[in-house]
Amino acid sequence: MFSKIKHGIWALGAFFMLNTTSAQEALFGAQEIKSPEIHADNSVTFRFMAPKADSVKLTGDFLPTIKIQTQFGPMDAPGPVHLSKDDKGLWSFTSQVLSPELYSYSFEVDGVKVTDPNNPFLIRDVASVTNIFIIGGGHADLYKVNDIPHGTVAKRWYDSPGLKMDRRLTVYTPPGYESSTDEYPVLYLLHGAGGDEEAWSDLGRTAQIMDNLIASGKAKPMIVVMPNGNISQDAAPGKGSDGFYKPQFMAPGTMQGSYETNFMDIVKFTESNYRVKADKAHRAIAGLSMGGFHSMHISRYHANVFDYVGLFSAAIMPRENAAGLDVYSDIDGTLQTQMDNGLELYYIAIGKTDFLFNANKEFRKKLDDMGMEYEYLETDGGHIWRNWRVYLSEFAPKLF
Amino acid sequence: MFSKIKHGIWALGAFFMLNTTSAQEALFGAQEIKSPEIHADNSVTFRFMAPKADSVKLTGDFLPTIKIQTQFGPMDAPGPVHLSKDDKGLWSFTSQVLSPELYSYSFEVDGVKVTDPNNPFLIRDVASVTNIFIIGGGHADLYKVNDIPHGTVAKRWYDSPGLKMDRRLTVYTPPGYESSTDEYPVLYLLHGAGGDEEAWSDLGRTAQIMDNLIASGKAKPMIVVMPNGNISQDAAPGKGSDGFYKPQFMAPGTMQGSYETNFMDIVKFTESNYRVKADKAHRAIAGLSMGGFHSMHISRYHANVFDYVGLFSAAIMPRENAAGLDVYSDIDGTLQTQMDNGLELYYIAIGKTDFLFNANKEFRKKLDDMGMEYEYLETDGGHIWRNWRVYLSEFAPKLF
Repeated sequence: MFSKIKHGIWALGAFFMLNTTSAQEALFGAQEIKSPEIHADNSVTFRFMAPKADSVKLTGDFLPTIKIQTQFGPMDAPGPVHLSKDDKGLWSFTSQVLSPELYSYSFEVDGVKVTDPNNPFLIRDVASVTNIFIIGGGHADLYKVNDIPHGTVAKRWYDSPGLKMDRRLTVYTPPGYESSTDEYPVLYLLHGAGGDEEAWSDLGRTAQIMDNLIASGKAKPMIVVMPNGNISQDAAPGKGSDGFYKPQFMAPGTMQGSYETNFMDIVKFTESNYRVKADKAHRAIAGLSMGGFHSMHISRYHANVFDYVGLFSAAIMPRENAAGLDVYSDIDGTLQTQMDNGLELYYIAIGKTDFLFNANKEFRKKLDDMGMEYEYLETDGGHIWRNWRVYLSEFAPKLF
Repeated sequence: MFSKIKHGIWALGAFFMLNTTSAQEALFGAQEIKSPEIHADNSVTFRFMAPKADSVKLTGDFLPTIKIQTQFGPMDAPGPVHLSKDDKGLWSFTSQVLSPELYSYSFEVDGVKVTDPNNPFLIRDVASVTNIFIIGGGHADLYKVNDIPHGTVAKRWYDSPGLKMDRRLTVYTPPGYESSTDEYPVLYLLHGAGGDEEAWSDLGRTAQIMDNLIASGKAKPMIVVMPNGNISQDAAPGKGSDGFYKPQFMAPGTMQGSYETNFMDIVKFTESNYRVKADKAHRAIAGLSMGGFHSMHISRYHANVFDYVGLFSAAIMPRENAAGLDVYSDIDGTLQTQMDNGLELYYIAIGKTDFLFNANKEFRKKLDDMGMEYEYLETDGGHIWRNWRVYLSEFAPKLF
């Protein structure tokens, strides 16, 4: 048979060419255009082929900011820039030299927002999908997959008796976990509104950050549990029994106390399914925005469970208890109890232009007034993933 | 503090609105348009807002096929259809009633291929990203996340002494694996050219298919190991130490024998890291296209290791050995040895219009001539994921 087909059309060349010109490719034919192209000096060229378009703009979190109007007054936002068109209809724009970071961007073609067809690396934030790229160096090297030992990232389901459903979570176990007999500490890492159990691993690059911090000896090997904080979901949009639907910023029933009261379901699951040090000294909880809100409330409601608490751009705000719950009652008293019980680290990080800056400032004053110690990190920038990756990178080395 | 901010602008409403109109949203502002909309009769409406466009087309694998010209003659491909524009610039198209299936699609706006900004569910196939949706019912219910026990999907790294690198793979462990003391059988499931360790879990919906088959008692609980068959990569594009780059159809060094000779690295890793039945009767290997090629060669080269072999649209074709390797030598003799050693199932599946149909027909004749038994499934359609999901759904129940 093989001698026969060797001279037929089914040799490798044909296989290769037929596949690349197959129905799939004819359907979705990718253009042979390089975008983004990262130059040696870390300027970046973006390209988009659109011969018939009148206007192609680029938006991205690396562009100089402009003032935009919102109902609460002016806010800073990266301003869109115009690409230039060549005689073949290829539009391009070259950025200024960019500092190390994971950036995201998209195009706007005649007013229509589109992703870059030449860059298959995308992340979803709530319902928006954007392209990403990394400028290496400095802290951005923590976001890269380097040639070092890697942990395992598992998508797993746990039974929540409190919420009466099987729910999905993401678990990072550090390099060597499977072959070791050691017991490990655990960081519970919570997402913000609009996020889910995919957010920290995808947008937050948790596995890459932890692998890199652990390999360099800057963080201790630890397990990171990333649950889903939307009590109406069993899993992220598209990953659960609700099927495919357009994700919303706030899922129904969110931030009414049920997640906080039932959080020990997740702790119990983790401690009975992983080789962990199951004591307060080896438990940390941290979260961003709504996850910072959750971390603050969970850690004082379960006031002797966590020795480390991290609030990243935390959504410090009043909330109403759902019927039958009293999570948000007696906040001052339970914070006092949490302080009296003792804890190793209470950590607050926020950006100077975060819309929650003042709320966090008031919260810090409250802690100051009651004599509760905390570490505080104030950065540039606002309520953005760029900051949350930095906060995780700063917080994790302080643990355990 | 709380009474103070309760009356300030930082109450929940402001938090919600500021976030939804935040810089991120201002940047990438999602349109409030429903697309795709699946109607009660399973027709589907697609919508795209593009007031300035002259033409918006839809391409998708559910559209009636037309003949397209390739260098090897005419091929069937789903034909693009034109959307209609309303007076607000919203383009729309409603399909005919669709049968149950996981479908993919994208738009073409004035000649530019773009994804649907209103559908955040995307899959990457080689370098192309397309939107997906599911029409439920029949076999397509196997692709849904149903309210049944779920297995765990882990992205894990193993050491390959043969290929001299740490490499990433995907491992599905069935529901109950973690709490059980049972030993499980293992299916090694291999991707095609252009794929990687993400292909079967993302495009192939392996976890959903296995969860559903196991829950209904149609397949035995088993572990499914999905490795990366491109020997030049440590991981899928964007997931490994090569960083972000545009994926190619054929990675360097692919299909020259190294993967086959070193495959036992993966078997040894699996059998020393998971609770498995480590014998021939509890090992299966199957793959699509290049993965079918790999499965055929691996299973006869390691001629007494696997009791179950599945070739899905297998790339049966001659190949040259890399220097120092003789994997592709004495194919007839090693197939004879594999047959003489005995095996439970040799399974071949292919579509009638697959460009590899004739090569598989010749291979079946070879097996017929040597008296090797096999099961054979012939379906409609060609070299497409739709078929490979069906073949896995048919093959898995026959195992163990």
